[in-house]
Amino acid sequence: MEILRTVAELRAWSRTQRNAGRTVGLVPTMGALHAGHASLIRAAANGCDAVAVSVFVNPTQFGPNEDFARYPRTFDADCALAEGEGAEVVFAPSVEDLYPGGAAAFVEVEGLSSRLDGASRPGHFRGVATVVAKLLIAAEPDRAYFGQKDAAQVAVLRRMATDLLLPVEIVVCPIVREGDGLALSSRNIYLSAEERAWALVLSRAVRLVESLVAGGERRGDVLLEAARGLFAGVPEVRVDYIELADWGTLLPVEVAGPGTLFAVAAWVGATRLIDNFIIGPQVLAQEERDIEGYSRQPQTGDESRRWESEAAWPA
Amino acid sequence: MEILRTVAELRAWSRTQRNAGRTVGLVPTMGALHAGHASLIRAAANGCDAVAVSVFVNPTQFGPNEDFARYPRTFDADCALAEGEGAEVVFAPSVEDLYPGGAAAFVEVEGLSSRLDGASRPGHFRGVATVVAKLLIAAEPDRAYFGQKDAAQVAVLRRMATDLLLPVEIVVCPIVREGDGLALSSRNIYLSAEERAWALVLSRAVRLVESLVAGGERRGDVLLEAARGLFAGVPEVRVDYIELADWGTLLPVEVAGPGTLFAVAAWVGATRLIDNFIIGPQVLAQEERDIEGYSRQPQTGDESRRWESEAAWPA
Repeated sequence: MEILRTVAELRAWSRTQRNAGRTVGLVPTMGALHAGHASLIRAAANGCDAVAVSVFVNPTQFGPNEDFARYPRTFDADCALAEGEGAEVVFAPSVEDLYPGGAAAFVEVEGLSSRLDGASRPGHFRGVATVVAKLLIAAEPDRAYFGQKDAAQVAVLRRMATDLLLPVEIVVCPIVREGDGLALSSRNIYLSAEERAWALVLSRAVRLVESLVAGGERRGDVLLEAARGLFAGVPEVRVDYIELADWGTLLPVEVAGPGTLFAVAAWVGATRLIDNFIIGPQVLAQEERDIEGYSRQPQTGDESRRWESEAAWPA
Repeated sequence: MEILRTVAELRAWSRTQRNAGRTVGLVPTMGALHAGHASLIRAAANGCDAVAVSVFVNPTQFGPNEDFARYPRTFDADCALAEGEGAEVVFAPSVEDLYPGGAAAFVEVEGLSSRLDGASRPGHFRGVATVVAKLLIAAEPDRAYFGQKDAAQVAVLRRMATDLLLPVEIVVCPIVREGDGLALSSRNIYLSAEERAWALVLSRAVRLVESLVAGGERRGDVLLEAARGLFAGVPEVRVDYIELADWGTLLPVEVAGPGTLFAVAAWVGATRLIDNFIIGPQVLAQEERDIEGYSRQPQTGDESRRWESEAAWPA
């Protein structure tokens, strides 16, 4: 596996693939790779002929008081993981490579960028949309892979790619969880043992709402109240938001249906964690399925079983 | 010559050229083509194997009280001109083709976008940067051609292309003028005969500053005062701005030098006109030449002689 450092190298590699008739998959990451990233790389390797994994801790998506400086950096392990999952190259540019001469041009997705995590983290999605636009322009992939864990980010990026006419398919892969339900995140390493236990309230809330929806509940206020009730029992965890939103627009919805995103964000000590659940046809009654406009739902794969199967969850 | 209507058609055409080993030039326009546009298409045809001219009156770059609705539309004549100058295709999309599902994602070039014309026309350069980014992403050209007439726009677009890592060379072609000096503009047709005469104060101011610089004057206040003096003699024309700025950053400069932009914008009746002059090595003493950072100056060609030669200007 080769490590590429410059945009020119990445583009040359991608064009070589394309000219040889091979499809290219890109997995954009900030490094600190875990099993969630591994599932993205695996999906890319299954869906494309050649896979690039980018490893870049993007400064423009961190707020001034956020964890840019201490964000975990595990480059050697990242390369080993990427290679093991079938990546052909790792793209690891410097800040100067991706922001030549600094950052003046930004991609802003109006509306979407200020909702959910965007409301809590001003400028975050602007930084994300900008760096992913750059990566897509540089790598020219046929498909780019993102985790559903960052559901609001996915909504912003799909809209960005559509609006900028980028010829790429955005593929969304299911959330990967620890055995006890905690959604994998590079930031989980910040958690103390005590915080690690408190953090389970996020996945428990997601699980609760999922089961209520599976049981036929559609009323937003009932679903949100149920989730809030769980958080009320863990006062050590400070809720940032608990919302039901349309996954396309990120606007609030009052009645859950296909494409509705249930999302939570909360502070566990100094660490902000997120989790979510998206209502897909599989949890809806037949008459609610196949509604126009609900498309590009998460691909099913090995990981999706953890999502859909009771067995993968703790009792 | 073929007329393409969709992004997919344009991209397919461009990739066919590339796969055949031909370089692609793009000339983005809003139609209402005149001899200035003709010079861009000609430069593209000279510099590239295949040329696309886009004709799209972009709604997102017009302010609410601007002339979007009445902007001149002369599509058949535009196609004839483009074909005559060597264009292989004209790309004429609908608003829905370029803004599928509306406009949520925008490209903003911070700082630059709010200077010169950006200060007078809030949001204008955001619309320009966005639509040109889309066109460059869709057409995937090797080179894109713009007129120096819109010097601030060029500065914004160069920064946009650099920052978004777009693999395109931005080529800037000299201003084309009427026999009496008036810079060509699609908006000149708005002028009454009286206004047409008043409008000459813009090019006279540009000419005056150019001659002062050629004579050795470098003090910004002296150059600006001389230009203001000319405008004072034509009270019917309302100055929007008269500025000396760095062509790269659009920030004001106090002492003129290589890469300094002298730019004017003024209202002649209900019509806003602009004109400018960029100090290049050719008007500077030897010791001022070849300063690092002054690059990508306008290509010289047929039209550039009008710019450099006394003979092309009225006495």
